[in-house]
Amino acid sequence: MHNLNVHQLCEPGSYTYSYLLWDPTTLDAAIIDPVRAMVGRDLKLIRELGLTLRYTLETHIHSDHITGSGLLRQTLDSLVMLHENCGSKYADVLLRDGDRIPLGSGKITVIHTPGHTDSDISYLVPGIAFTGDTLLIRSCGRTDYSSGNAGVLFDSINSQLFSLPDHTRVYPGHDYNGFSCSTIGEEKLHNPRIGNGMTRERFITVMNNLRMDPPRAIHEAVSSNLRCGMPGSEAAVIRH
Amino acid sequence: MHNLNVHQLCEPGSYTYSYLLWDPTTLDAAIIDPVRAMVGRDLKLIRELGLTLRYTLETHIHSDHITGSGLLRQTLDSLVMLHENCGSKYADVLLRDGDRIPLGSGKITVIHTPGHTDSDISYLVPGIAFTGDTLLIRSCGRTDYSSGNAGVLFDSINSQLFSLPDHTRVYPGHDYNGFSCSTIGEEKLHNPRIGNGMTRERFITVMNNLRMDPPRAIHEAVSSNLRCGMPGSEAAVIRH
Repeated sequence: MHNLNVHQLCEPGSYTYSYLLWDPTTLDAAIIDPVRAMVGRDLKLIRELGLTLRYTLETHIHSDHITGSGLLRQTLDSLVMLHENCGSKYADVLLRDGDRIPLGSGKITVIHTPGHTDSDISYLVPGIAFTGDTLLIRSCGRTDYSSGNAGVLFDSINSQLFSLPDHTRVYPGHDYNGFSCSTIGEEKLHNPRIGNGMTRERFITVMNNLRMDPPRAIHEAVSSNLRCGMPGSEAAVIRH
Repeated sequence: MHNLNVHQLCEPGSYTYSYLLWDPTTLDAAIIDPVRAMVGRDLKLIRELGLTLRYTLETHIHSDHITGSGLLRQTLDSLVMLHENCGSKYADVLLRDGDRIPLGSGKITVIHTPGHTDSDISYLVPGIAFTGDTLLIRSCGRTDYSSGNAGVLFDSINSQLFSLPDHTRVYPGHDYNGFSCSTIGEEKLHNPRIGNGMTRERFITVMNNLRMDPPRAIHEAVSSNLRCGMPGSEAAVIRH
C-alpha cells in the first residue's frame, strides 16, 4: 500500500496522544485514542481535510481520560473498535490479534499486546507502530492496577514489538517529557525499563515496586470508557 | 540529498517546539530552537542517538522562553546561528536569506520571513518548512511588540511560505491546541488569520487589534536570548 498520512494530536491535560490516519487518495480515515475534551478540535480538522472517518480505534480502556469515540460515532457514524477482552457491549467491532482493518487501499494490523491491561492493542501500518500504553518512549505502561501484569507486559513488548524492524517508528499513547516519537531500535537500546537486555525477572520486580498513586478518577474513567465516553442512555447506537 | 531524520520535541511550559534534525548516515545534527530548561533531556537524546551536534539554529530572538543554544554550545561545541538582524554579538554565524547550511550530505536553506520580529527565519529541508513563529498551525505570530510589523508578516507568509509546494510539511515554533504539524496546502486553505484569500489590508487591521497581553518576562527573555541564554560572563565562547 502507499503510505498513510498521520497527524499526531495532543491533549495537554493528560498528555494523551491521538493519531488521525488517512489514505490521501480515498480520504478514508481512522483516529486512534480520541479524547472527548478534544472532539471539537478533531471534528474541525477532519472536516477541513475532507476526510470520511471510518473508525475510532482504542488501544485499551483508558483510566486517565475519557474517550471521544462515542461522540465521534454519534456525529460521523464511525465504528468504535476495541479488543474483545474489554468486555464493552457498546463497541461496534471487537478486535483480536491478527485482525486487519481495511483503510482506503491499505490495512491496519491489530496486535494484542497485553500487560498494562489485558486488552491492550498496538496498531501497525507500514513503518509505524502505534503502541498505546504498552511501550512508551523510554518507559512503558504501569502494571499495578486493573488487569495489569508485569510478566505479560514484558512478553508483549519483547515478542510483539521488539521483533519489528529497528527503523519502525513508535508513536505512543502518552508522553510526559515532551517526546513525540521514537523507533523500535532506540527503545531496544535505550529504554531504561525494558531495553538493553533487561531480564524478565528484574523487570517484574521493578514494575511491582513502582509504588505510584492510582490514576485520578480511574473508576469514573473506566466505566465511562466502557460506554465509549457517553452517558448510559446515549452509549449504544442503533444502526440502520 | 536523502531525507533527514526529524524528532519533534516539546517544552510543555511555553508549548515550544524544538526540532532535532540529523543525517542518518553521517549522524551530523542540528537543533532548531532548543529550550534551556530542556537541555538535559536534549543532551541525553543526542548522546543516545550517537549524534554530533553541529549547530543550534534560532528562528528568532524569543520572548517567551530562554534558548538552550549557549548551554549546548558550552557542552558540545556546536555553533549558534541566527539572523543578522538580531544584533547579537554572541552568535557564531549571522545568517541571511538564501544561505545554505551544510548538514551531513545535505543542506538546510535559510529564508528570511520577518514580521513577527525583523529577524525571523524559516528553515527549509526537502519536504519540510520549520516556520518558527512566522506561520503557526491555523494562526501566525503576533506583530504587536518589538520589531513586529503586520504588513511585513503578510508579505513573508505569502511570498516565502505559501509559494512552497502544497504538500510541504509545516513544523511551527509553538502550538497551543495540541497540533503537531500541518502542510502549506492546509494553511493556505484553512488558516483563519491569513489563509483562504485574506487581504493584506484586512490582515493588518486584525493583527493591529488583537489586544493581547505582552509576553511574560519579555525583557528578561530577549536580553538573555541575545546572550544565547547564558549569564553575561559566560555568553561568549573563545574558539581555539
